[in-house]
Amino acid sequence: MGKVKVGIAGLGRLGKLHANNLAFKIPDAELTAACSIVPAELEYAKEQLGVADVYADYREMLEKADIDAVAIVTTSGEHCWQIEAALDAGKHVFSDKPLGITVEECRTAEAAVERHPELTFFLGFMRRYDPSYAYAKEKIKEGAIGTPYMVKAAGIDPEALAEGAIKFAATSGGIFIDMAIHDIDLMRWFLESDPVEVYAAGATFKHPEFKEAGDDETGAAMYKCENGALGFVHVGRTAAHGYHVETEIVGTEGSLRISPVPEKNLCMIYDKNGAVKECVSGFPERFAESYQLEMAEFIHCVQKGAKPDVTVYDGTKSTQIGFATTKAWKKGGIVKIEY
Amino acid sequence: MGKVKVGIAGLGRLGKLHANNLAFKIPDAELTAACSIVPAELEYAKEQLGVADVYADYREMLEKADIDAVAIVTTSGEHCWQIEAALDAGKHVFSDKPLGITVEECRTAEAAVERHPELTFFLGFMRRYDPSYAYAKEKIKEGAIGTPYMVKAAGIDPEALAEGAIKFAATSGGIFIDMAIHDIDLMRWFLESDPVEVYAAGATFKHPEFKEAGDDETGAAMYKCENGALGFVHVGRTAAHGYHVETEIVGTEGSLRISPVPEKNLCMIYDKNGAVKECVSGFPERFAESYQLEMAEFIHCVQKGAKPDVTVYDGTKSTQIGFATTKAWKKGGIVKIEY
Amino acid sequence: MGKVKVGIAGLGRLGKLHANNLAFKIPDAELTAACSIVPAELEYAKEQLGVADVYADYREMLEKADIDAVAIVTTSGEHCWQIEAALDAGKHVFSDKPLGITVEECRTAEAAVERHPELTFFLGFMRRYDPSYAYAKEKIKEGAIGTPYMVKAAGIDPEALAEGAIKFAATSGGIFIDMAIHDIDLMRWFLESDPVEVYAAGATFKHPEFKEAGDDETGAAMYKCENGALGFVHVGRTAAHGYHVETEIVGTEGSLRISPVPEKNLCMIYDKNGAVKECVSGFPERFAESYQLEMAEFIHCVQKGAKPDVTVYDGTKSTQIGFATTKAWKKGGIVKIEY
Amino acid sequence: MGKVKVGIAGLGRLGKLHANNLAFKIPDAELTAACSIVPAELEYAKEQLGVADVYADYREMLEKADIDAVAIVTTSGEHCWQIEAALDAGKHVFSDKPLGITVEECRTAEAAVERHPELTFFLGFMRRYDPSYAYAKEKIKEGAIGTPYMVKAAGIDPEALAEGAIKFAATSGGIFIDMAIHDIDLMRWFLESDPVEVYAAGATFKHPEFKEAGDDETGAAMYKCENGALGFVHVGRTAAHGYHVETEIVGTEGSLRISPVPEKNLCMIYDKNGAVKECVSGFPERFAESYQLEMAEFIHCVQKGAKPDVTVYDGTKSTQIGFATTKAWKKGGIVKIEY
Repeated sequence: MGKVKVGIAGLGRLGKLHANNLAFKIPDAELTAACSIVPAELEYAKEQLGVADVYADYREMLEKADIDAVAIVTTSGEHCWQIEAALDAGKHVFSDKPLGITVEECRTAEAAVERHPELTFFLGFMRRYDPSYAYAKEKIKEGAIGTPYMVKAAGIDPEALAEGAIKFAATSGGIFIDMAIHDIDLMRWFLESDPVEVYAAGATFKHPEFKEAGDDETGAAMYKCENGALGFVHVGRTAAHGYHVETEIVGTEGSLRISPVPEKNLCMIYDKNGAVKECVSGFPERFAESYQLEMAEFIHCVQKGAKPDVTVYDGTKSTQIGFATTKAWKKGGIVKIEY
Repeated sequence: MGKVKVGIAGLGRLGKLHANNLAFKIPDAELTAACSIVPAELEYAKEQLGVADVYADYREMLEKADIDAVAIVTTSGEHCWQIEAALDAGKHVFSDKPLGITVEECRTAEAAVERHPELTFFLGFMRRYDPSYAYAKEKIKEGAIGTPYMVKAAGIDPEALAEGAIKFAATSGGIFIDMAIHDIDLMRWFLESDPVEVYAAGATFKHPEFKEAGDDETGAAMYKCENGALGFVHVGRTAAHGYHVETEIVGTEGSLRISPVPEKNLCMIYDKNGAVKECVSGFPERFAESYQLEMAEFIHCVQKGAKPDVTVYDGTKSTQIGFATTKAWKKGGIVKIEY
Repeated sequence: MGKVKVGIAGLGRLGKLHANNLAFKIPDAELTAACSIVPAELEYAKEQLGVADVYADYREMLEKADIDAVAIVTTSGEHCWQIEAALDAGKHVFSDKPLGITVEECRTAEAAVERHPELTFFLGFMRRYDPSYAYAKEKIKEGAIGTPYMVKAAGIDPEALAEGAIKFAATSGGIFIDMAIHDIDLMRWFLESDPVEVYAAGATFKHPEFKEAGDDETGAAMYKCENGALGFVHVGRTAAHGYHVETEIVGTEGSLRISPVPEKNLCMIYDKNGAVKECVSGFPERFAESYQLEMAEFIHCVQKGAKPDVTVYDGTKSTQIGFATTKAWKKGGIVKIEY
Repeated sequence: MGKVKVGIAGLGRLGKLHANNLAFKIPDAELTAACSIVPAELEYAKEQLGVADVYADYREMLEKADIDAVAIVTTSGEHCWQIEAALDAGKHVFSDKPLGITVEECRTAEAAVERHPELTFFLGFMRRYDPSYAYAKEKIKEGAIGTPYMVKAAGIDPEALAEGAIKFAATSGGIFIDMAIHDIDLMRWFLESDPVEVYAAGATFKHPEFKEAGDDETGAAMYKCENGALGFVHVGRTAAHGYHVETEIVGTEGSLRISPVPEKNLCMIYDKNGAVKECVSGFPERFAESYQLEMAEFIHCVQKGAKPDVTVYDGTKSTQIGFATTKAWKKGGIVKIEY
């Protein structure tokens, strides 16, 4: 198989990022079509990405464009039907996370994936492709920390983004749906077991606007897994130092911690403040390479017929766990998780 | 007031540590008497500490010895009555943690402390006197991280001690009583609020003997505090790298983390394993200075009539929280904490 | 200007690296021709890079190939005449470091560059394009450490490469020519002043084979610069932990240190050895991104007619300094450096 | 032997520090006499140290005081004759570094030490007793880094002390005598070989007052040792972040670095500046424990007749090397070092 021809759906901030990777940084990919309901985004496609074949309608792109695959980077509520439509049209599918925003939707996507075992379906949990996370997984497989039995995760957006998050708070689904989905996926990935119970709570100490919108500024959830392993996830929106994503995996023979200092680069400055590591400003800086690597892996899977590490079921489960966590947080108690 | 004359009760491992500090490292203290039910320990007092005035009976020491104060380092179940007896005998009291092993006992100690406002009562939560913890508290008071609203703590004993812990497991009161009491105290200290709800769980993946003894190898507990702040405590017994005590305080303007790498000293070794920081082997190594500093502070309080930072009520509360956590862990659910 | 068409000269290890970047990772570049005296390398070009237009003769490529630019990655002794020939043929030139191996050669290249101000000449000191080094330079320009007045550098190859280095020792030009050229360039770049005096020494404690070949295993050189600033460069070949490249810039208001721990990624492993950061294995791992970024910058310069940060004179000077250092090392004394 | 009775000579800043250690922190020592030409210091001895037996004349203290040993913490130029006088009076001697300020003086002290093999002579290179340095030495002895063949050292005083240093500059003997003596001693200690050649230079970029006083703000020296090992020492006076003492020992199988971040304690603050380690403010903070440990070791040597690790000859040699370095710096060239 030659270069994989891809049509992108959605050209917002993340869509542009994926589109640029497809257009310029993945040798075996070719970005041949783009679709968006925002005219300016189609202009962008033409001018910045050199994609002439653009569509305002997703189904029309599926029908007419010269594409082997689609990359779905639309708003979360559109993912599932677009996945189904693309697979039924014979296209390989990359979809950004989350899989969907209701379990029913996710089941529809699952069924579509099951109907088309000949096609690649790839779900964009890009953290799994981050070199440090991938290395951690590899080391754990090699036995570096024995059997992993606990994951402690933190994902905290920078204070600089708080204002935007406040605007979005009433409709975001709440902090766990909005922010914890990656941590939940990583917890399952590292522990190789599913959480069956969750306890959660939230707090708002800096921006009362979150509380007023029915949301919280900080969320914490503790999980018990089927095999007895434990999980703890802390999400927040007000990190003063930058974008803080940290994960620790505790095992019987050691622990492995990823990014306790979310350093911007390898510089250490010694100045009047002390010995200072500056930190990354946000996810585009922290995970730039991950986005590129996951897309390269998608293309590789399409070309080779290889199975991605992440499955559609991982997508459904992380959504289910996100909802269960939200329920526990809202009602202030324990929620059992069933799949 | 001149040097404070102290009688020590209990000369086990920790008792010896305190006794040596009193005898040799606290300028304003004099160790003038010792009491133990173990004859060999009294021999130790005479030969190693130069204390000739020794007793097998605690009440006899209170009655006859030339002492201004006692340092109680006996087994936990003896603390409360010994505190009461000493205060009623007009002696200042240093007692190691925990205050007691039942809430009733703790109330007796509280009453004795209240009866003797003229005497110093000092409870040995030595971590508060560790230079790093004390510095953290100071920085937080100065506003370095704004309002603290979350504490994440880990306290993990080295694997080297696991065998001993297994023997002790059936009678230790369980991992939270045995290990989490310091973390609970620190959580309250940093958050300046009391937990009102706890959810807890345990896991055993390496040494099934813990499970068999009704205990667990690892414990995790999540707390909600009266003011809305959150806490997370992780305790364990199998750290491969040494003795891992780590605390993070998250605030509205920043975070402060104490000892993410429990480094043995300031050396970094670059060898075939990579860039390696060796770690402390156990609490005597990690907290040697804290033990000395807390005892110096006790003596200072006695001499100046100053009030210690830790009160008898802190002792009762940490015991109550420890029991509530244990209950949540045992029954597998949420427990409301009342004081 | 559209995509820049590039012909590569030399497809050894580093040549392949550059060729892959040009072929697949630089959006505005197109690798359209390749030249090598090694037939297998031309096969590689055809099969792995998709370059059909290949040459055994460099001048023939210049004459016949459809190229705007050449990327010279041949052995060091070929650089200068190839630079001259390409410029005289109207091609933009990227040449890997060093510029040349004699000062006379370098002067020839300088003259060619001066004859063709309309063409881009780019010298591959890729460390300057490493995100951490580039960030350091930027911070220094912004005044983060005041006036820089001292550079301390270390560049140590991993022990794993020692065997290969031993074979190459007799013909490498010695450890300073072979290894210190990047550090010398960085020293000049950060201090913005040229060294005028050097004192150097070598040592061999592990592999006597280096000494036997007239080389040394470790080299150290100290420099005085025209403006009074100081430099210290330590190069070696036996790092147990990996590939260690570290640079510190000391200034009047602070210091900046790049990569004191040459960490492989963001993982920290806590195991029986302690808290361990694994380290990078060699320059391809450490500087993968730099190679890509410098080539992107070359293409950008060609397209925009922008002037690269590195000039041909930087190339001559680093060669001169390398020779002066070697002379000081060989004779065991001080050498004055004239330009 | 019971407690060692010590008379202290000199009660300036460092004298007070030693006196407090002797009076209060060394179980087996007793501070029984004090001598100073400054009346206020004798008042201090009486009031703060509880030493009633005070002298304005050193020889009178030797003659009349009830002492087994003296601790000499007077100005450097007094050390040697006071050492000689004390030894000849049958007293054990602790002398702070440097041994003396001329080689002739040092020889006198050497002769006195040789005349009294029955007495302990202890030279206060306290860094050797710092837990991290002592640990490094121990690890090296155990073979952790193979054969050590290079030492790189930095000792930089905080900017906060620069003003004071400027006042002292004209009479300090210059930056190498004033600041490099510890680094020189450590270099010899770790390499177990003596430098035979030195090249040195200085620079002044921030405070021209140093230059005006014939001194420099920063000094750098490179050494070749008898066994072929190399050394590099960087001293300075303007560290923005605090007091920076760092040492690296490079060996055939690894490297060992002490204190690359001169951290104040185990706290890491994450705030708007990034991830910040605050640093120690000066030598009293950094080496508090070392001063106590070296004095305890002195007392131990006296009691047991044990030989200290540091000898009088180490004192002479570090002085010789300091002078040779100063000569190289002043004349701008290489100086051969003879002993």
